[in-house]
Amino acid sequence: MKISKPTMIIDPVKVVKNIKKMAEKTAKAHCLFRPHFKTHQSVEIGHWFRSCGVQAITVSSIDMANFFLADGWQNITVAIVINPRQIEEISVLAKKCRLNLLVDSLPMVALLEKTMPVNVNVWIKIDTGYGRTGIDGNDWHSILEIAKAIDQSAQLSLAGILTHTGQSYSAKGREDLSALYDQVKDKMQMIRNHLHANGLSEVKISLGDTPSCQVCTDFSGIDEIRTGNFIFNDLMQVYLGSCDLQDVAMAVACPVIGKYTSRKQLVIYGGAVHLSKDYVISSAIKIYGLAQPFAQAKFDWRKNENFLIGISQEHSVIQAGEDLLASTKVGDLLYVIPAHSCLTADLLKKYYYIHPTLGCLPIHNLEIDDFKTAL
Amino acid sequence: MKISKPTMIIDPVKVVKNIKKMAEKTAKAHCLFRPHFKTHQSVEIGHWFRSCGVQAITVSSIDMANFFLADGWQNITVAIVINPRQIEEISVLAKKCRLNLLVDSLPMVALLEKTMPVNVNVWIKIDTGYGRTGIDGNDWHSILEIAKAIDQSAQLSLAGILTHTGQSYSAKGREDLSALYDQVKDKMQMIRNHLHANGLSEVKISLGDTPSCQVCTDFSGIDEIRTGNFIFNDLMQVYLGSCDLQDVAMAVACPVIGKYTSRKQLVIYGGAVHLSKDYVISSAIKIYGLAQPFAQAKFDWRKNENFLIGISQEHSVIQAGEDLLASTKVGDLLYVIPAHSCLTADLLKKYYYIHPTLGCLPIHNLEIDDFKTAL
Repeated sequence: MKISKPTMIIDPVKVVKNIKKMAEKTAKAHCLFRPHFKTHQSVEIGHWFRSCGVQAITVSSIDMANFFLADGWQNITVAIVINPRQIEEISVLAKKCRLNLLVDSLPMVALLEKTMPVNVNVWIKIDTGYGRTGIDGNDWHSILEIAKAIDQSAQLSLAGILTHTGQSYSAKGREDLSALYDQVKDKMQMIRNHLHANGLSEVKISLGDTPSCQVCTDFSGIDEIRTGNFIFNDLMQVYLGSCDLQDVAMAVACPVIGKYTSRKQLVIYGGAVHLSKDYVISSAIKIYGLAQPFAQAKFDWRKNENFLIGISQEHSVIQAGEDLLASTKVGDLLYVIPAHSCLTADLLKKYYYIHPTLGCLPIHNLEIDDFKTAL
Repeated sequence: MKISKPTMIIDPVKVVKNIKKMAEKTAKAHCLFRPHFKTHQSVEIGHWFRSCGVQAITVSSIDMANFFLADGWQNITVAIVINPRQIEEISVLAKKCRLNLLVDSLPMVALLEKTMPVNVNVWIKIDTGYGRTGIDGNDWHSILEIAKAIDQSAQLSLAGILTHTGQSYSAKGREDLSALYDQVKDKMQMIRNHLHANGLSEVKISLGDTPSCQVCTDFSGIDEIRTGNFIFNDLMQVYLGSCDLQDVAMAVACPVIGKYTSRKQLVIYGGAVHLSKDYVISSAIKIYGLAQPFAQAKFDWRKNENFLIGISQEHSVIQAGEDLLASTKVGDLLYVIPAHSCLTADLLKKYYYIHPTLGCLPIHNLEIDDFKTAL
């Protein structure tokens, strides 16, 4: 396929290497690997996970649960506290798979007890400092109260306590991430101990954010890891220090449509409807992505500062270094490593890869066996 | 329809009032109203424009041009400098409608001359200070050179000079916007005069950004207005002072899934994949939207500070005032006025409205005659 507009390209080998690395780290700690599929939202990439032994998944909406259920996934966590307005859809879904739901209040436990037609696993969402949803991790009284309510319900099984350490996206480097992981793990273990001490013996701990899970080397003491972004990584992970630039497995190929030598800028066709408006901050400047020359089948990223410093609906402006400026003309393609790969994938939806001889192809029909030798 | 997940709602009466207001302002100045359809990307809303006398449109991609061509639009400007990688698609499109294209370099003029199978209108994109694409508005030499190259081509018709004053989104209030409009108009008129003086007598001027076009009361001296966002408006327009809160014609109905009284916060199902990550700054805080109680068929917005202060893929966090906090419970709906309606529309795609008796309905089949009496 000729690339004529913004096109999401992945390096399947890097994707599967990222999957294997996380799968091995979880296996070593006897921890369940339940990857978050909201990052890729792709049937094909789901198959690659399956080939790496994954059987349980995380999604972020009921629609996404139904999407992966249709492809045979039978053990699904919907990692957002339940939305009472979707209780009918949730009931239907519960009958079709082993469903794991999240709650953070007694009324929602009562609602599930009243409405679920079959037994479902229920996780108590804990706020360990991110400040989004969840019961305050210091409020042991409420946590115990909810745990007991779930445990006493015939229709609900208490799965455990679950948190999303989203504050890791504000961390300052690897040490900070590592310290945050330990701190959250300690907090979750203390909550579990408290529940144990009160007669609730089967309480699992589920964690999930990519930054701290990539930095952590030992998942011991945790029962389940739900990370998602790690399969692709992005500029945000690189800037957080949670991965190397070479671990980035997704980029968007964008046509250059303007070259402005006096201001040392290139303009690409590729904007907020392709890359999202997410950004990282570098030297007090908002960076929407990093441009690289469009090249070979295997991504080989070079550290540089060809940053996307402006973005609008369909365009982005790249402040280009001398080399990129000199070597690029209107009509060329550039790779853009997006600031946030999850949102980019949600926008572009279709994945392509560069075949060494056939060029750009959709990942459709590409099986892990096709590139096993490269792994 | 029962609203169970983030749902884009418009007030059709407000939408058409916004259209009529801009149509009347352009008609008064004998200026062509060529609205930008990238904001709504909707066949139905296109029909409402048609009912208001609009026949020429602006789009931001070749795909969008084909989409509206299929619905009978015959006079289309693709308001992004041409992408040489799509030259074949552009050629096909040129045969099917009166196509208007943008260039900002001589090689692109030469490419069009070589490839266009029929005559196309060509606009010279001028950079009047935004710094995205376009020839520097002070570089009269290059502008004249390109104008002559277009004029001398048998296959190309010089339409005129076109600019997008995107820097208006950094303006400080209405006076600043008004001054910016006048300044850009003067600059464009001086360029036109220079081209006239050099024998190019048929040179139109096309402007387009919503903030300055909403503030401007007289389009005299301009040939064409391409504004798009004005049909819905959003929090950004309100904050820029280019419209009143009551002019906002789109909101997203979002279910409340969490209530955290101690931190005075509500969490809604509705995040970056519904609203985008665009924001406005208020008192140094990033605001992703403004929450309002979900109420009647006609939007009746009240000024408040129930801001979305945090957003992730599927959730947003609202810092709620006492009233909203007291009156809202998990399972309720809230309206969210997004920071940027164009990106929200691109993400949610489907439009609904609240029928006074039938409730939430898709705008499909809703004709302007159905709500004419309310206009």
